[in-house]
Parts: sequence; structure tokens; C-alpha cells
Amino acid sequence: MTELDDLAELAKRRGFFFPSNEAYGGTAGFYTYGPEGAALKRNLEDTWRDIFVREEGHMELEAPTVMPEAVFEASGHLDGFDDMIIECVECGSTHRADHLVEDAVEDIEDAEAYDPEAVAELIADHEIECPSCGAPLADTDVEEFNLMFGTNIGPGSSSPGYLRPETAQGIFVEFPRLKEYARNQLPFGVAQIGRAYRNEISPRRALVRVREFTQAELEHFIDPETDEPPLERVADVEVPLYSAEAQNADDGGVEAYTVGEAVEEGVIGSEWVAYYLGRAMDFYERIGIDMDRFRYRQHLTGERAHYAADCWDAETELGGNWVEVTGFAYRSDYDLSKHGEYSGEEFTLFRQYDEPKTVERATVDPDMSYLGPEFGGAAGDVADALAALAGRNRSAFDGEEVTVEVDGESYTVPVEKTGFSVEEQTEAGEHITPHVVEPSFGVGRLVYSVLIHRHGTDEVDGEQRAFLDLPADIAPTTVAVFPLMTKDGLDDRAEELAHELRESGFEVAYDDTGNIGRRYRRQDEVGTPYCVTVDYETLEDGTVTVRERDSTDQTRVAVEDLSDALRRLVSGATLAEL
Amino acid sequence: MTELDDLAELAKRRGFFFPSNEAYGGTAGFYTYGPEGAALKRNLEDTWRDIFVREEGHMELEAPTVMPEAVFEASGHLDGFDDMIIECVECGSTHRADHLVEDAVEDIEDAEAYDPEAVAELIADHEIECPSCGAPLADTDVEEFNLMFGTNIGPGSSSPGYLRPETAQGIFVEFPRLKEYARNQLPFGVAQIGRAYRNEISPRRALVRVREFTQAELEHFIDPETDEPPLERVADVEVPLYSAEAQNADDGGVEAYTVGEAVEEGVIGSEWVAYYLGRAMDFYERIGIDMDRFRYRQHLTGERAHYAADCWDAETELGGNWVEVTGFAYRSDYDLSKHGEYSGEEFTLFRQYDEPKTVERATVDPDMSYLGPEFGGAAGDVADALAALAGRNRSAFDGEEVTVEVDGESYTVPVEKTGFSVEEQTEAGEHITPHVVEPSFGVGRLVYSVLIHRHGTDEVDGEQRAFLDLPADIAPTTVAVFPLMTKDGLDDRAEELAHELRESGFEVAYDDTGNIGRRYRRQDEVGTPYCVTVDYETLEDGTVTVRERDSTDQTRVAVEDLSDALRRLVSGATLAEL
Repeated sequence: MTELDDLAELAKRRGFFFPSNEAYGGTAGFYTYGPEGAALKRNLEDTWRDIFVREEGHMELEAPTVMPEAVFEASGHLDGFDDMIIECVECGSTHRADHLVEDAVEDIEDAEAYDPEAVAELIADHEIECPSCGAPLADTDVEEFNLMFGTNIGPGSSSPGYLRPETAQGIFVEFPRLKEYARNQLPFGVAQIGRAYRNEISPRRALVRVREFTQAELEHFIDPETDEPPLERVADVEVPLYSAEAQNADDGGVEAYTVGEAVEEGVIGSEWVAYYLGRAMDFYERIGIDMDRFRYRQHLTGERAHYAADCWDAETELGGNWVEVTGFAYRSDYDLSKHGEYSGEEFTLFRQYDEPKTVERATVDPDMSYLGPEFGGAAGDVADALAALAGRNRSAFDGEEVTVEVDGESYTVPVEKTGFSVEEQTEAGEHITPHVVEPSFGVGRLVYSVLIHRHGTDEVDGEQRAFLDLPADIAPTTVAVFPLMTKDGLDDRAEELAHELRESGFEVAYDDTGNIGRRYRRQDEVGTPYCVTVDYETLEDGTVTVRERDSTDQTRVAVEDLSDALRRLVSGATLAEL
Repeated sequence: MTELDDLAELAKRRGFFFPSNEAYGGTAGFYTYGPEGAALKRNLEDTWRDIFVREEGHMELEAPTVMPEAVFEASGHLDGFDDMIIECVECGSTHRADHLVEDAVEDIEDAEAYDPEAVAELIADHEIECPSCGAPLADTDVEEFNLMFGTNIGPGSSSPGYLRPETAQGIFVEFPRLKEYARNQLPFGVAQIGRAYRNEISPRRALVRVREFTQAELEHFIDPETDEPPLERVADVEVPLYSAEAQNADDGGVEAYTVGEAVEEGVIGSEWVAYYLGRAMDFYERIGIDMDRFRYRQHLTGERAHYAADCWDAETELGGNWVEVTGFAYRSDYDLSKHGEYSGEEFTLFRQYDEPKTVERATVDPDMSYLGPEFGGAAGDVADALAALAGRNRSAFDGEEVTVEVDGESYTVPVEKTGFSVEEQTEAGEHITPHVVEPSFGVGRLVYSVLIHRHGTDEVDGEQRAFLDLPADIAPTTVAVFPLMTKDGLDDRAEELAHELRESGFEVAYDDTGNIGRRYRRQDEVGTPYCVTVDYETLEDGTVTVRERDSTDQTRVAVEDLSDALRRLVSGATLAEL
């Protein structure tokens, strides 16, 4: 079995995650997190929140997952969020057309970049057959399939809605309100952790390509001209960079830089992206990613969205493949501009000048008692045309007469009848559209990566054991409590202790079945860092055995000191230091 | 302004919640939680988890929000989860037909109980008009409208899916796996906090009737014959009960009982429901519900789902109306039985007998070399009929011959050719379908109730102030840090302090704009229980002013003791006790 199969078996058996609705044959692309997985996921999200919201002083919001069509017209998802699909006329099965081409044609690695007609031609030229039934697919149309799940809001079909393909849009559309909560001061960041949806044609690879998933996204709104990240906080953080240049080179690979060096040498193009690449290192380490199986990969020119200046992905190595777990993008003013344009609302923010500026403005105040009789019904339009001309080209008013065109006809007006004048105006500032820096984390992929990276086996007392060496504050259960035997009051004492530890805020498991060795194995397998056993000595002297997962070392601790001891252990103390 | 309007204004202005997508004209029934609201909601969910998952030792899972059609065929939502709708032929607007009848006809309070034809007749008889355009609605069809949001999973329409109308189904469908995590031992509980969806025809009343909302549901699986709740833990808890009997009586009202009394006197029918009514009191109090505006109301006979033995709602009073915030239902074996039936999988659990039981089983082993030649093609059916008869009525085999009917024809067989025998079998237990007790909380409605109940005004130093007296561990922000002035290093010292408090795990706000009084008001309005001011004394003696929201009292605390002092305050200490 590969490490991925191993993990899938463990995940199902012990309740980390499993395919949903298996009683009904399963639903491809949907997974349920069982008790262990849901707890692990929550701990990971809390760690993310600690770093990217609380420590940074950002805001967090919670928006609906269903959004109206207008939002996705503006964001571009309605038109552009497509995959190429081909439906076999023989068996009715559907496939990603670009993937079929990539699999069949040796020198095409990125068929997604072709248009559907070209892909259809390639399918015909290479006589590609249906993977399900073997029928030839030549002469079959390749179509664009929108990856958003559609629905209808309210009765009828007059209000189409979609399950959001990214949590980010729920933040962007509320910018006019959010800027008020930030008291109209840039920079400010708004985060959201929540579900997002992509109706994948071929979901696969467990939690990697699923149809419903959890994102943790931060949208940091900045003034591109004046705001700078606190780069000094991360300047010395080492980051493993796989730059576009290295990817294009024959012998290129991952190189270690400090964030400071990478910015100085221009390897990372945006200081803001560099800042978050540095900050995120702390996160990956704290949740238990194996940093020897981790890299930051820069997008190649063709990969980047057209609006993105510089993009990096965090990738983890899983079963021999690199998987994107985070995207770091400089989204410029793309999203806010689009929403401003489509909604007609203000997606801008007022930037005060250091000192008010004085500017000249040319205006007109036409004499309508002249224009009316002279031009009749066209008089109003002529007045508007004069105002527009004044704003555009004030020298047109230098002579005696000025001529404007309305609906293809020329109208000449004496300048003295236009009320033309140039006035000085004082302006306190200007409206700007903030830029956006976005670190976007795939929570499920991170959970999956942590489980794979922390899953291992070793030998204890001549027996093989499977373990998850999860960080203590990430593990689903912090401490398991066992009675040595279920008699002589040991079990009552142990249940009481479990209850007390829960009251003290620990995640506690209680287990009284099987021998102690077997109970240790059960906890090792789900990553519980500490086990506490109540035995006959407990009844005599009030101490319990505390056993540590990774070393399998044991020590005795007085029950009244236990909460405190566990807290110190979780914070990094060793058993010997207790 | 009413208290609801007041709150709506505050909620928008300060970022508790607001209608989503207002830049695009808004989307009825969808709300976004702003930074304050999202934090409050999270604290409320964490409190729920503490009580209903951690302290009870239950499991928690996270299932997808999109589920396949088969699940809702089984659960009954596909057929039965409808509202009656009428579409005006004049203006095209749609309305809840039953609500129109209730509004127009004095003595009909529950038109939902009528069938659509009857409602259409009532609309015609009472000449009810379209509320939008005034056109008569007589002769317009009343139709059933399913409240689930539908979508398609994968390309095409061959795999319909729905946004779950309750989180519960994501637990029920996984019962075959969940019971294994519980090591096949009843009772066990599985909780889930997550989004649910109802495509309401007329969303209204802010967070009360929305189309996307958050539920916190617990499904407690029990053996109805042998499991009993630990009623002694809540026997003395007082609950305000508005029983069905009191509702039907002329002078009935809410009566205070202890849980123990209510069970003994039969006011609450199910001990399990009683247990959770008692447990939940702690929850409502901890999150800040005004218990003078709270009651438990029993469902009337007509209100209950057909499978529910006893149902109670927790209700809060909001703006003069009672709103359901939690449903406590005894769902019996309804859900598991349905999923067992529809999926063909085992939604049962093996219950071991205290001692193995010996039972007699009658079986046949027909001599086919006799039946074959004798009955030809019917021989197989005759053998089956003999087997069925043996199970049903073993005395039929008492004579020389036995007669069975197959397809209306009689076949007589000598008993000696049937291989009839009675054998003793030992059985260790039996398969049972667990019953389900379900407390189901509407998180948004609880957030809304807490905000309304805690929102008030008083007078401080001759000025009116608005406040939210939220419990300290529920408030979005625990402590706000102010520099007295933004000069002389006070602001640096204050920012440093804010950073330190964040590192210690507190939710911290920093504010340096406006005078101190105004900053206090800002924090009072969003419910921040403590404010800390860094002033010139701080620079001299290292103390800061700590100010308490409700009393507006102040005291000085040394910076090095501040974390500890705040922790004690949050746990209930007063300023004087510091």
C-alpha cells in the first residue's frame, strides 16, 4: 500500500474523513469529517485565525454561501469559470476533454490553454477513445462547462443563484460597508473561513480535488502607492522558493532564501506577497507540515490570472506529487473595480492628500435665453456638449466662437453666451480603488497534508506501532485517561479525572477496554500526545502515570498538579522537566 | 423606533450583521455577519460545543451541505418539505397562500394544515386579493413549493442534489460508520454545527426567517428500552414551562417547575427531552439570554411531526413576539428506519442479551427429487412456500400431509418429504434501531435574541449611552486598549500592551481616536466588558486604568498583573476584588 492508501484506510477506520453518503453508493467529490477529523480541522482553523486574524489585527466575517448571479457576472466567474467537457455519444459518460488530450498526446501538458474547437480537433486527430466504453470521440463536440453549482433563489427561475466558488467574493461585495468598520483607513484586512464549491467534472485524490471544501482566505486591502508591509518582522524567515526562473532552467530547483534576500534580489516581485510567504511559514510549522516536503512555487507567466502581478503557491508533497495548499496572489484592484463597475456603487476609498491641492476647473454656464430660441429642441444637448468640451479641451473656448457636435450636426455658439470660466478649486484628497493581497488556504488539503506527513510507523517493545505525531495543540485529543482495571474503584476515579480535565478545558478521551498497551496504540494512531493511567498507586498516593506519545516515556504526576503539567507539556515542556 | 429597528441600525452600523449583497440591491433572506457579529456567533458556538459536545463526551462531525436526492427521498423532505404558494396572474408576484388566508380569515390560525385545494377555495370564498397589485386571486391555483434549494451534481441533470434543510441528515446517513466510532455501544451522541438552507417564499424578520442559516444540532442515539438519561444532574434545575395543557386552558400561562417535578408530574413526556431542557438552561444563561423573556413551549398535538412523541420549543421574546430558538424532539427511530429501508444498508445496532437466549426455529429441507417430478416448474415455489409456512405455523406439519398454495393453486406434500424439523438455536442478542433525541438550535436566532436582550440605554455623567451588556466570554472583544493621548510615547506603550494581550489569548481592540469618553461609548455599544487606558501614570509607575462596562467603575492595575486580572474578571471577579 502507498502512503495515501494507508492514510485513507486509517482516516475511514478511525474517523478522520470518509466519502459521504456511502449507504447510498457515495457521492463523488464529497467527504465527511468524522469526530477525529472535524476536531483536527477545527484546531487547524483556530491556529490560522490566531496568526492571520488575531495577531495581525484583521477583521473576520461570515457571509452566505449562496450568492446572486450579479455578483458572478462582475467577478467573471459566470463567463470564465469553465472546464472543457466531452460527452460520449455511445455511453453518455462525461470527461475532461483537456485531460484526455494531455494523457494521449505526449508533448501537450496544458491543454486547458487551448480553445474547445482546437481540443476537439486534437481528439479527432489522435483518434482518442472514450475511457469508459472505448467508442471513438472524434466528431464529438467539446463544450465549456461552468463549475459553479447553480440554484434558484425563491420560487421560479427568475433569481438564479450560485454556490460561491471562493469565499473571497463575500468579502469584496461588502467592501462599501467594510471600509466603514475600518474607519476608512487603509490598509485593513478581512478574513473568512468557510465553505466553497466547485462542480468538478472528475473529483479525485481524496481531499485534494473535491466539490465542496473549506477555504480560509484573507483579503488585505492596501493603498498601492503608500502602504508597505512590516517586512522587518519576517525579513529573517527562511523560505524554500521554487522560482519561475528555476522552473524554466534545466537544472533549477528549490532554493532557500530569507524573505529579506528574496525581496532584495527580486525573486519575489511583491513585498506584500513576500510578507505573507514569511508569515505563513509559522503557520505551516505550527500545524505540523513536514517542511522537508514543502515549497513555495512561483506561477509561470502563462499560469497567472491576467490581473495578478505575482503569484506563489505553497505546495506539499503527497505520495510523490506536489499539491497546492495555498495561493498567494496580488489581485491588484481587479475585483473592487469590477464590482464598482457592475453595481454602480462606490468600491473606492477617499485618500486624503497630505496637504489640500488647488486645481483649476473649467466650467460653462450657458445663456439658455440665447440657446433656446437659437437651437430649439437641441438646446439642452448643446449645453451638455459645451460642458463636456470645457472639461476636455478648454482651449476650444479661446476664440470668439466655439463649435460642438450633437447627433452628427454642428452647432456654433458665441463664447460669451457659454458662460465659460476657469475656477480654482481646493481638493482635500481623491477616491482610490484599493489593491488586494490575498493569501488563500485550502483547509481540507492542509488537513490531508498534515495527516500524511505526520503518519508513520516505528517499533515499540518489539511490536510495530502506527502513530500520528501531531503537534500537541493540533491533535484532536490532548489527553486520554485510562483506569488500569475496571474494578476496585479505579474506573470511577478515572472517569472523575476525565471529567475534571474536561472542565479545565482539555480535549479528553476515556478508554477502559483492552489492555493498557492496546489502549496506548489506539491513542498513538490518532495522535493523542499524552495518556494518563489511574492505577493502584493512585489510590494510595494520588499520583497518576503520564505517558508521552513520541518517546513512549512515562513519569508519575500528582493529580492536583496534572492540569498544570499538561498545560506545560502542550507548551513544549518535556516529561523530564515536569 | 422599536427595539428591533434600534438593533437593526446598530447591527449594520457597528458590523454585527447586515443584508448581503446590498451593492446589488440585496438578496432577500441572506445576511452577512460583520466582524463583531461573526466573533459573537463564534463565541456562542464555542459555548454550545463546550456544553453539548465536550462536557457530555459526545462526538462532533462536519458533513457536506450538498447532499444527493436519495437522502431526501428517504428523509421525506423531497415529498413533504413544502409550502403553499400562489402566483398572481396579473403581476407575477408569489405569496404564501396559507398566510394570505390566515391574514384574511379571522378564525383560521393555521392554514398550513389545510390542503392546497381547500386553501384555494378559501381564497376564492373570501375574495382575497394579491397583496402586491390588488388583483383578485380567485381561480388561481395554489401549489406546493419545495423549500429545498436544488442543484445538479456533476455535468448534466442526472444527479440532482439539494442544499441540506437540516444538518441532522448528514449525521443520520453516516450512522453505519458512526456506530463503529462509538464501538457499537449505545447511547452515544453526534453533534454538528453548520449551515442549513430553506428557500423561504417570504423571508422576513431579520435573522428569524432567513434562507441560509446556521444550526447546532445534537443527535443522541439511545436504546429506548434500556438507556436512561442522568436526570439527577438536572433534577433541581428550574425550567419555565408553557405546557400544551396551559396553552389550551383559558387562564394558562408559563409555570416554573424543576426538571424533576416536571417529569414526575408528567408535564414533560420524555425523560430524555427533560434532560436536555435542563441542560440547555445553562447554555441560554451563559450566552446572555434574558431569562425573563424566555420559555419552553410544548408542541400542541397538531404541531408535532407524526413520528415525534413529545416536542418542546425554547422561545425568546423579541419585540413583543415569541420566536422559536431551539427545538427539542424525540424523533424515535423514524430517521434511521427510513434510511435503512431506502438504502438497504444496516441502520441498526446489535444489542447483546444479558444472557444468550435459546429459541426454537422450525425449518424445512424438502426432498427435491420428490418435489421436482411431482410438481415440475412449480417445485421451487412449493419449497419456498413450505419454508414460509414452517416459520409461520409449525402445527401445519403435525399431520401426514401438508398443503400450501402457490399462485392460487394448492399443492399437497407428504410431511416426510418436507424435511421438517424444529431446532434449538442460541442467540446472543438482537439488532435494534436506536431512537434519537434531538436538541436543534438555530444559531442566528440565538445571536439575534442575545443582541436584542442585551441591548439597552442608560445615563452616564448626564449623557445617554447605548450598551450591550454581553457576558464577558461571549463579547466579540474582551478588552479595548487606549492611549490617553497619541504622544509622549503613550501610543507606543498602548500598542505594545495590545500586542501582549493578544499574545496572551485575549480578543483585543485598539482605539486612539477621539476623547476617552467617546472611546468608552464606542466599546459600550459593542459590548466590550473592559477598557484599559495607558496614561502618564503608566509611564511612571507601570499601572493602567481598568474600566468596567456595566458599573463604569475604574481601578488601577499593574501592567504585569493585567492578564491575570482580566482572566479573573472574565471568570466573574469584580473590580473591587482585584
